[in-house]
Amino acid sequence: MMTRSLHARMANAIRFLAIDAVEAANSGHPGLPMGAADIATVLFSQVMKFDPADPKWPDRDRFVLSAGHGSMLLYALLHLLGYEAVTIEELKRFRQFGSLTPGHPENFVTTGIETTTGPLGQGLATAVGMAMGERLMAARFGSGAVDHFTYVLASDGDLMEGISQEAVELAGHLKLAKLIVMWDDNRISIDGATSLSGSTDQLARFQASGWDVVRIDGHDPDAIRAALEAARATGTPSLIACRTTIGFGSPAKAGSEKVHGAPLGAAEIAATRAALGWEAGAFEIPEDAAAGWNAAAQKGAAARAAWIARMAEMPAAERDEFERRLRGDLPAAALAEAVAGVKAKAVAERLVVATRKSSEITLDAITKAVPEMIGGSADLTGSNNTRAKGQKAVTPDDFSGTFVHWGVREHGMAAAMNGLALHGGLIPYSGTFLVFSDYSRPAIRLASLMGERVIHVLTHDSIGLGEDGPTHQPVEHLAALRAIPNLLVLRPCDTIETAECWEIALRAKDRPSALILSRQNLPLLRDADAANRCAEGAYELRSADGAAQVSLFATGSEVALAVEAQALLETQGVATRVVSVPSFELFLARPPEERARVIGTARARVGIEAAIRMGWDAVIGSDAAFIGMTGFGASAPAKELFAHFGITPQAVVEAALSQLRQA
Amino acid sequence: MMTRSLHARMANAIRFLAIDAVEAANSGHPGLPMGAADIATVLFSQVMKFDPADPKWPDRDRFVLSAGHGSMLLYALLHLLGYEAVTIEELKRFRQFGSLTPGHPENFVTTGIETTTGPLGQGLATAVGMAMGERLMAARFGSGAVDHFTYVLASDGDLMEGISQEAVELAGHLKLAKLIVMWDDNRISIDGATSLSGSTDQLARFQASGWDVVRIDGHDPDAIRAALEAARATGTPSLIACRTTIGFGSPAKAGSEKVHGAPLGAAEIAATRAALGWEAGAFEIPEDAAAGWNAAAQKGAAARAAWIARMAEMPAAERDEFERRLRGDLPAAALAEAVAGVKAKAVAERLVVATRKSSEITLDAITKAVPEMIGGSADLTGSNNTRAKGQKAVTPDDFSGTFVHWGVREHGMAAAMNGLALHGGLIPYSGTFLVFSDYSRPAIRLASLMGERVIHVLTHDSIGLGEDGPTHQPVEHLAALRAIPNLLVLRPCDTIETAECWEIALRAKDRPSALILSRQNLPLLRDADAANRCAEGAYELRSADGAAQVSLFATGSEVALAVEAQALLETQGVATRVVSVPSFELFLARPPEERARVIGTARARVGIEAAIRMGWDAVIGSDAAFIGMTGFGASAPAKELFAHFGITPQAVVEAALSQLRQA
Repeated sequence: MMTRSLHARMANAIRFLAIDAVEAANSGHPGLPMGAADIATVLFSQVMKFDPADPKWPDRDRFVLSAGHGSMLLYALLHLLGYEAVTIEELKRFRQFGSLTPGHPENFVTTGIETTTGPLGQGLATAVGMAMGERLMAARFGSGAVDHFTYVLASDGDLMEGISQEAVELAGHLKLAKLIVMWDDNRISIDGATSLSGSTDQLARFQASGWDVVRIDGHDPDAIRAALEAARATGTPSLIACRTTIGFGSPAKAGSEKVHGAPLGAAEIAATRAALGWEAGAFEIPEDAAAGWNAAAQKGAAARAAWIARMAEMPAAERDEFERRLRGDLPAAALAEAVAGVKAKAVAERLVVATRKSSEITLDAITKAVPEMIGGSADLTGSNNTRAKGQKAVTPDDFSGTFVHWGVREHGMAAAMNGLALHGGLIPYSGTFLVFSDYSRPAIRLASLMGERVIHVLTHDSIGLGEDGPTHQPVEHLAALRAIPNLLVLRPCDTIETAECWEIALRAKDRPSALILSRQNLPLLRDADAANRCAEGAYELRSADGAAQVSLFATGSEVALAVEAQALLETQGVATRVVSVPSFELFLARPPEERARVIGTARARVGIEAAIRMGWDAVIGSDAAFIGMTGFGASAPAKELFAHFGITPQAVVEAALSQLRQA
Repeated sequence: MMTRSLHARMANAIRFLAIDAVEAANSGHPGLPMGAADIATVLFSQVMKFDPADPKWPDRDRFVLSAGHGSMLLYALLHLLGYEAVTIEELKRFRQFGSLTPGHPENFVTTGIETTTGPLGQGLATAVGMAMGERLMAARFGSGAVDHFTYVLASDGDLMEGISQEAVELAGHLKLAKLIVMWDDNRISIDGATSLSGSTDQLARFQASGWDVVRIDGHDPDAIRAALEAARATGTPSLIACRTTIGFGSPAKAGSEKVHGAPLGAAEIAATRAALGWEAGAFEIPEDAAAGWNAAAQKGAAARAAWIARMAEMPAAERDEFERRLRGDLPAAALAEAVAGVKAKAVAERLVVATRKSSEITLDAITKAVPEMIGGSADLTGSNNTRAKGQKAVTPDDFSGTFVHWGVREHGMAAAMNGLALHGGLIPYSGTFLVFSDYSRPAIRLASLMGERVIHVLTHDSIGLGEDGPTHQPVEHLAALRAIPNLLVLRPCDTIETAECWEIALRAKDRPSALILSRQNLPLLRDADAANRCAEGAYELRSADGAAQVSLFATGSEVALAVEAQALLETQGVATRVVSVPSFELFLARPPEERARVIGTARARVGIEAAIRMGWDAVIGSDAAFIGMTGFGASAPAKELFAHFGITPQAVVEAALSQLRQA
């Protein structure tokens, strides 16, 4: 047991590094690190399992700072614990260009950061995914290989975001006993007292979802330790409400929103030094505090050594598999074979199915080839077709399954998928309707920013969903998803393209993908060939009979329509080619000359997609014609809607002929 | 008190209209109307205050079917209660093109529908706004004018969505006693039993946020009535958990997910008729049931007559003001004067401020001129600058204020804003960071679909926010918002444009607006002129010195940068003009010849916006150059970021010169 005085010195080291870094940057959030320093000190020095010598040690405990604005708490910890990259110079460059200490924690920038946080609520929901990941991996490889906790520090703001409820419900339902949330219960948010906008009894709220809950003094190290020890022993996730004072130690600003997001200023820093008895200069760590942190940094080495010894005893084949999954490498041959099999089957059976069904057929094959895939759906399993044959559901008592019933919780699902991917060893994919990607968008954005391999299956991708009407019909969602940097948006036109798009998504190790799939049946347009043509982003699916006068460009369900239009045009003697464009991102990443070859030199160009035009001009140019949507859809059978909104082969023919007349 | 047998007949009339309409459409959701028919019958025949003779009667009780997929429940009710438009023919055309009975309830299609629902959770959160609207209007015009309840029927799925928690917390905090939520507690969602994905004790959850809760048998009319009466008497919002059987009455399918979203089929319909003793043919209403519903339809007439009498006694000026606000007409002269005043002040003081500050200055003036404006912020009041001088906060005990502390609840806020607008008499506006429009997006989409006047103030609109880094820096959000049909996206460049954009947003009676505002200071670029130039969408802000060789197009904070680039180009003898583009939507709605005039004939065109290019090609053409972002931002002081990402006057000059060389 650490003495209270040493604890205080170690906690104050965090406080002053945060104070000094924010002051140097003249920007940042000192309030949280000052308020939560005691919690963090107990957690990192007495409870958590980690080893700075190997920050990526797979069985380390995870720590998620959901309140990402308190990033200096994390950077101070990493520095004090001797994570090599986070030098004192980096702390001095807090929030400066190219530093390892950006304004919010970014896991792709700073080793030792588990996930990127800042958008509130995300960290908590991502941590639920990490804790699920631990259970899933333990169920596969045993607790000798995987047995760690996931700790979260969450703020009042985290708990106000709706996604937090989805996370709380999922964690409670799945009995994620190794998830422990420390709530920095300081009763202050940016506008002032949290009582301005809320009066929820958070303990009762978490309890209603099956959590173990307790409230403690968040500045009492013994209480913090006792609460953490008790929480580790329960069979449910735990909330520890840590009553703290934001900006603890600042005589004039503690307990006020003024210390949330602004430097203290020189005078108040001096006053805080006096109040906390801190003699050291800016960015200086007194010896006693440094020694305490050095000792803390050593504590995990033995656990890691024991883990290494256990792993050495694991059968080689199992260990190889464990390591392969953690590296994120695919079983390439098995995957290729599975994909080839689907393509062959599609040709043999001339499959006329919706691409959501094509996806199911593909999943039946590839989930066997790639056992690290974890499927799911936001309560639309039968509609999204994301459950492959033989996939067993994950339940609170059995994590050996590979399919998650997420409930109607798109946002929590997407964030937890990020957590599964970040945990390592798993490739999460899951489904909802395309229109509801709006609900999960903040988490999809974070996946894109972090470069995580999560795969969103988004079905019912246009007015083709029909009768459910405009609330359920995406028109702007393809554009909105294509707008997110680094997200791979894939809209296949038939079973062969769907299989290829799945292969692309799985192989995209460092970016998320969205598979955009139809509700309605579509003909098989491709012949199987070994090459993954979708990887080209766009390619000529049908050549013209002679030198092309018209090039038609389409995606997904509209490719078949383009092929019909081609036939009509050819009948009229207009040589026409069809280009399938399953992915704008992949196409636009190709060299200009290759793109020019695909775009071709036909006098008329027409883009076709049952969605708005936005984004298309980058592919076909703003002088091309476009057949699609300009506003919301309507409730009616799908065929009538395509006719009403003028997305028909005839309309394509007219647009092409009109272009030819003008050209 | 109604006899139980009459009640059953009336409820069965709902059930069979739903069964028959879904069967006729061969599409739809019979399970909820069958399960919730008893609840709806008690509510509409014994409790709710409304008058089909005047569906828009301002003091009617509101009913929100949050579980919008059960739309036939509503259509059956409207038909049985004699809402004229919803004839039996319309019920037969359920889910058909152009009918008044679309797949999900659409308030802009069907009179008697209070709000558009379907995306789960939205209805509940919108209802919170309606209940707030009632309190706000009662505080202004007295309970003689405004004194009604808001009832919600919510499903399991509604309660799983995170937005529901934000709504529950807001309603509990604000003690919205006249909000009563009936939860259709049937323990079934699409994937099957709700226990597959959740185990939250919903009563405890609502209670944790200060709600009155009770669980009843949702098929017992006496219990339903008693619970509703008790709920009406409490001082808090109420949750009535109505334990029901989905698809009640269907011998083979009741209690199963099979009856959620598919027709029963002829055989099962016959079995259900037998089970419920329903002798009438398809779409036939037996006389006893019809008579019961006719009597129910008459009940509200007296209350409405009494209300009309009370209104007649209201002082004429007050009544005129009440009616003006309900019509949604603006105090045009006062608004014009306020806007003119801001413009004059900006010129007189040559204001160099962030446009978020310009917005605050504008709000100081226009909230006085337009007292029906209800402001707010998602816990970023001081950053969004949405609180005007003298605006008093709304509190649980005092609704005379005009500013709402929404907490960190962007999604619930946006949906409640929709409810405030739908209630009538109020113009909601509120703020968050632009990047967090991702959180509120589903509700912004619904506002756009419904054509509601809500105004989203979205600040910190680019990498210009600096140190907080890429999690907080929007790059794709302008494109993503512009993608939403009917949403007006306004990005002003200085105080004068900001005042004009506020005027446009307020005058846009039937569409929502998003005001996109800078964190950083910007110079005043406009001279005051009487005309609202922003209403043109794009206009020449600076003419060239001679025949323009270069046209620069920019929005918001990048207009000043364009003006700097213009000066550099003119120095080099390159005649350059600058076009400010505050709104793509307004510009693209203008006739082609007017647009051509604004675009001009300069050989080089360059678009400038600190965001991705998507969407710009529709304005400037895909052959124009563009200076902006191609990926995520970074954490650093704003100036360094603009330099790093090449969004500088020099880069614009180079792009223009390069265009000239190529042209």
